Amino acid sequence: MKKVIIIMGSDSDLPVMQGAISQLRSFGVPFSVRIASAHRTPALAAEIASSAEADGAGVIIAAAGKAAHLAGVLAAHTILPVVAVPVKSSTMDGLDSLLSTVQMPRGIPVACMAIDGSDNAALFAIQMLALSDAGLAEKLHAYKAGLAAKVEQKDREISAEYAQ
Amino acid sequence: MKKVIIIMGSDSDLPVMQGAISQLRSFGVPFSVRIASAHRTPALAAEIASSAEADGAGVIIAAAGKAAHLAGVLAAHTILPVVAVPVKSSTMDGLDSLLSTVQMPRGIPVACMAIDGSDNAALFAIQMLALSDAGLAEKLHAYKAGLAAKVEQKDREISAEYAQ
Amino acid sequence: MKKVIIIMGSDSDLPVMQGAISQLRSFGVPFSVRIASAHRTPALAAEIASSAEADGAGVIIAAAGKAAHLAGVLAAHTILPVVAVPVKSSTMDGLDSLLSTVQMPRGIPVACMAIDGSDNAALFAIQMLALSDAGLAEKLHAYKAGLAAKVEQKDREISAEYAQ
Amino acid sequence: MKKVIIIMGSDSDLPVMQGAISQLRSFGVPFSVRIASAHRTPALAAEIASSAEADGAGVIIAAAGKAAHLAGVLAAHTILPVVAVPVKSSTMDGLDSLLSTVQMPRGIPVACMAIDGSDNAALFAIQMLALSDAGLAEKLHAYKAGLAAKVEQKDREISAEYAQ
Amino acid sequence: MKKVIIIMGSDSDLPVMQGAISQLRSFGVPFSVRIASAHRTPALAAEIASSAEADGAGVIIAAAGKAAHLAGVLAAHTILPVVAVPVKSSTMDGLDSLLSTVQMPRGIPVACMAIDGSDNAALFAIQMLALSDAGLAEKLHAYKAGLAAKVEQKDREISAEYAQ
Amino acid sequence: MKKVIIIMGSDSDLPVMQGAISQLRSFGVPFSVRIASAHRTPALAAEIASSAEADGAGVIIAAAGKAAHLAGVLAAHTILPVVAVPVKSSTMDGLDSLLSTVQMPRGIPVACMAIDGSDNAALFAIQMLALSDAGLAEKLHAYKAGLAAKVEQKDREISAEYAQ
Amino acid sequence: MKKVIIIMGSDSDLPVMQGAISQLRSFGVPFSVRIASAHRTPALAAEIASSAEADGAGVIIAAAGKAAHLAGVLAAHTILPVVAVPVKSSTMDGLDSLLSTVQMPRGIPVACMAIDGSDNAALFAIQMLALSDAGLAEKLHAYKAGLAAKVEQKDREISAEYAQ
Amino acid sequence: MKKVIIIMGSDSDLPVMQGAISQLRSFGVPFSVRIASAHRTPALAAEIASSAEADGAGVIIAAAGKAAHLAGVLAAHTILPVVAVPVKSSTMDGLDSLLSTVQMPRGIPVACMAIDGSDNAALFAIQMLALSDAGLAEKLHAYKAGLAAKVEQKDREISAEYAQ
Repeated sequence: MKKVIIIMGSDSDLPVMQGAISQLRSFGVPFSVRIASAHRTPALAAEIASSAEADGAGVIIAAAGKAAHLAGVLAAHTILPVVAVPVKSSTMDGLDSLLSTVQMPRGIPVACMAIDGSDNAALFAIQMLALSDAGLAEKLHAYKAGLAAKVEQKDREISAEYAQ
Repeated sequence: MKKVIIIMGSDSDLPVMQGAISQLRSFGVPFSVRIASAHRTPALAAEIASSAEADGAGVIIAAAGKAAHLAGVLAAHTILPVVAVPVKSSTMDGLDSLLSTVQMPRGIPVACMAIDGSDNAALFAIQMLALSDAGLAEKLHAYKAGLAAKVEQKDREISAEYAQ
Repeated sequence: MKKVIIIMGSDSDLPVMQGAISQLRSFGVPFSVRIASAHRTPALAAEIASSAEADGAGVIIAAAGKAAHLAGVLAAHTILPVVAVPVKSSTMDGLDSLLSTVQMPRGIPVACMAIDGSDNAALFAIQMLALSDAGLAEKLHAYKAGLAAKVEQKDREISAEYAQ
Repeated sequence: MKKVIIIMGSDSDLPVMQGAISQLRSFGVPFSVRIASAHRTPALAAEIASSAEADGAGVIIAAAGKAAHLAGVLAAHTILPVVAVPVKSSTMDGLDSLLSTVQMPRGIPVACMAIDGSDNAALFAIQMLALSDAGLAEKLHAYKAGLAAKVEQKDREISAEYAQ
Repeated sequence: MKKVIIIMGSDSDLPVMQGAISQLRSFGVPFSVRIASAHRTPALAAEIASSAEADGAGVIIAAAGKAAHLAGVLAAHTILPVVAVPVKSSTMDGLDSLLSTVQMPRGIPVACMAIDGSDNAALFAIQMLALSDAGLAEKLHAYKAGLAAKVEQKDREISAEYAQ
Repeated sequence: MKKVIIIMGSDSDLPVMQGAISQLRSFGVPFSVRIASAHRTPALAAEIASSAEADGAGVIIAAAGKAAHLAGVLAAHTILPVVAVPVKSSTMDGLDSLLSTVQMPRGIPVACMAIDGSDNAALFAIQMLALSDAGLAEKLHAYKAGLAAKVEQKDREISAEYAQ
Repeated sequence: MKKVIIIMGSDSDLPVMQGAISQLRSFGVPFSVRIASAHRTPALAAEIASSAEADGAGVIIAAAGKAAHLAGVLAAHTILPVVAVPVKSSTMDGLDSLLSTVQMPRGIPVACMAIDGSDNAALFAIQMLALSDAGLAEKLHAYKAGLAAKVEQKDREISAEYAQ
Repeated sequence: MKKVIIIMGSDSDLPVMQGAISQLRSFGVPFSVRIASAHRTPALAAEIASSAEADGAGVIIAAAGKAAHLAGVLAAHTILPVVAVPVKSSTMDGLDSLLSTVQMPRGIPVACMAIDGSDNAALFAIQMLALSDAGLAEKLHAYKAGLAAKVEQKDREISAEYAQ
């Protein structure tokens, strides 16, 4: 199976990205975790993205905050799909990260998730890999059923609690 | 090759989505175009999404404006990756469409593109399909080189024009 | 009397919705409480909304946050009035929930309350039911008089405290 | 049948409110149209709202822009449900009207529609009146089916046009 | 001297308005403090504003949050200048209060201060009263000199501390 | 009667400020019109504000756009009340002008009007001058009655037109 | 004199950047104009920035819109000061460009100008070069005096026109 | 070496500005620290800016919040480059400070940093001074290399920790 590369602009983004790491582990999808800043280590970021395809990666997940250029910069160097997590920082409630990430110009797409939405970044990566992996698709169907079952269980409990 | 389904919430979104249609044609990726509203035809939307995987689709591209629920509603019914184009409407300059699309809750990811970013939705779909299609990957490398070549040509012209 | 159905996208919305529950109890309006996610349990959400009219419900109150599609999705499946509470989540200060909820397209209305405005959702539901229930209308007049009396009492106290 | 009162803060809001007028006419719901400003004619606004219940009205629809206080001011004087249309004005793209309308304090609800969403205001009023009017409910089911049929027709046309 | 009437939409606004109260006391300007809600006690609000001129008031200061209609409603009932303090509430960081307050339509002005800017509301009221009160104008000149002196003192301290 | 000084940051603000000029003329309030930029002619701006009180002015109206510092800079140099009109410029729909104008720090108040709200700036100035001018107060009462009469006339016409 | 390099993300930014070009010409500052996209030609952008210092450049001016990464990417590759012009694009009124440009992380500064503020980008570049060029400083003093003179002339005209 | 003048609108901005102070110390760049408010001490602010060039300063760094006029007011009085730090205050999450600072009109540039971005203000000042100081340029290259080295070290650690 092709692996996923998670790249963060700073190790301060790690707590947010634990959600992605957990999801990938839970689905048994191989991944690596890297720190590379679009601004402090542009060469490293370019190198990881440029070599990702040859290195057997299938998806890149990029997390960054504020003027969040990382996902766009990585996408500039690869044809692999790049999924982005705009990370909320100390000001602007994530709006700066969101707009910096999602408003990519024509030609270089980035798939933007919700602010701090790292679980979904991993799930989306898994959905892409499942396009050519029937076992993974099976697991996604099971995961989706599990999500529904949990809500349905909560619904039964709460509707019972408030039944009149 | 798996096909792409483009779904619009209204036929008024068609002009915006011509960019996606052109890109898919230019890459020779098979696609269908559907109109289905999350609010006016919820059953149709659910049916298209639910049957997409069995119908041989690999990616869904969803375009909607204002309280743009379509992509989320489709993603609720499939494990296929859903790519979303938030469409700018007559008020709020696209911010309503963007936030309605991108801020998906944990468990059901949607890949959000820029406001009115339909070219990139198609390109992102192609990047996903190229994960298991070497010919398509080849075309993406060529496309990317073409993009760069055009900018480099413009750079030569303009730097010559303003050379002192 | 027709009953009110309160539907939340997640049980994490329950604290916010206690205000609605208290108001309905205080007015003696029958209600049920359900959990159904537009994204995790779309079939359950559709089923509750589709059967609400036949089940003797008169009003649906829907609470959801982030890309808050629940109210719109419910409204797609019923002609009953749907009152929506956009719930503030961890980012964007409720703006995402508000715009996702209020900016509904033509044809499928949703009545949006203030962010986290669950008391008002219940009061609005009661106002609707009171259109054909003189006793309930009476109670609303009393409630409104009570609101005014409390403010007037505070006004007397504070104007006395600061009298010169 | 109880009638609907449409109240505008200014006659400049009339073009936006034609959508509501058309919908009410099309459903055969009686209505009156008034101009009353919360700021220029506060007594008139208070008088219309205060006497609405006794005058046989069932719903008030209020339209106003900028610092849109009209719906709130009317709601202060009646227990009838007040549906509000925040009208986009020359600056702020409707955000000022929206927030002024929707963020009502606890105790005095206003049902906010989308910016310039006058069709939906009428439809929501009709949904409320249909709670005690089976004929109107019938018409709403037919209207909803008609909405779906139109989208489905468009879907057939466009999917045929783009069939490959 | 004409007095100032401070009116709050709720006693929860009192902590914010202590700044205004202190300033008025410090300048020896007579004032009264009232609670009156545009929505819960519209008649009380109208009555206070309507009678303010005859009661010897010269300025009204109004404080309210969320859909902050109070200042506009008061201004509708008087030709006295109304100074408004938009109060930050639990969501939207004060933007709703600000836009609801400042975006008044032509004909009925309200003088908007900064979010939670109650000190300045009092100072502005004093500036208005000083137009016909030379003693008050004198105090304002002294106050302004005092503000400058404090900053200059801080400047001397800090420039000394960081002198190299 | 004390006069009003209208100061604009640029002559491009003149069209917006014609509303203020008309209102002052219509009320017979003496005024002068000046151009002075906080950034291009800081000394001129300071000089006008510093000498305004001695020159017999009672109110300053300041209009500026973008990073609209003019009103604040004028207020820094005078104890006269400064009324500000944030002018909408080519980007940001007036939000930059509004926030630059209204969010004044403690100690130096500015009375902010709506974006492009120049009529109201003049009316507010007149309300202040009317505090010590019974004739002007009389005119304001007449103006207010006129505003109401116009709305009431429109109400009669439109309610007749739509009477059923 | 060190030269200025103007870099645009796309030749569609050229109309906006004519302001900068004119200012540089008018001050006699040598400059070159380049097109280089952070996303389409990352290598070209990196190369221009990396070699700028050795090539005798003193300042880089970067213009880009939407997810405006260009200035940040250039700053990553040079110690020369980078001045950025966020360009307004077809949606979001420039807010996306502004936040993408200005919210740079610690360590890699970018000097952000107003949205579409290309004149000021050039003037700021000239101010920097003038730090070690007395002739240029002289010209800046003259330019500033000229700005003031024009406003003062306008002030004389308009205050005469409206003199009473 | 020309020195840097750091000017704050209030001593409450000092904690934010410690980042700038540390950077300047670490690079051995001489600086002074001043408190001067555009609104409370306009003469002091004008005096510092006007005399800065003659006093041997090369750069001014200005920090202010809310209606942040300080940087613009200083820039009005000098041809030295002014670098601005918009400081986040108690409301609006820094957006008011940012827009008040960055949206400067043509002719008077201010170089805006990120909200609370005081480190970068100092680094940008150093980049400007390094244009004519090879030793400082050397230090900047070393600083940049150090930034990269730290990220690369973190990358090695974290990629090892998560290696599979």
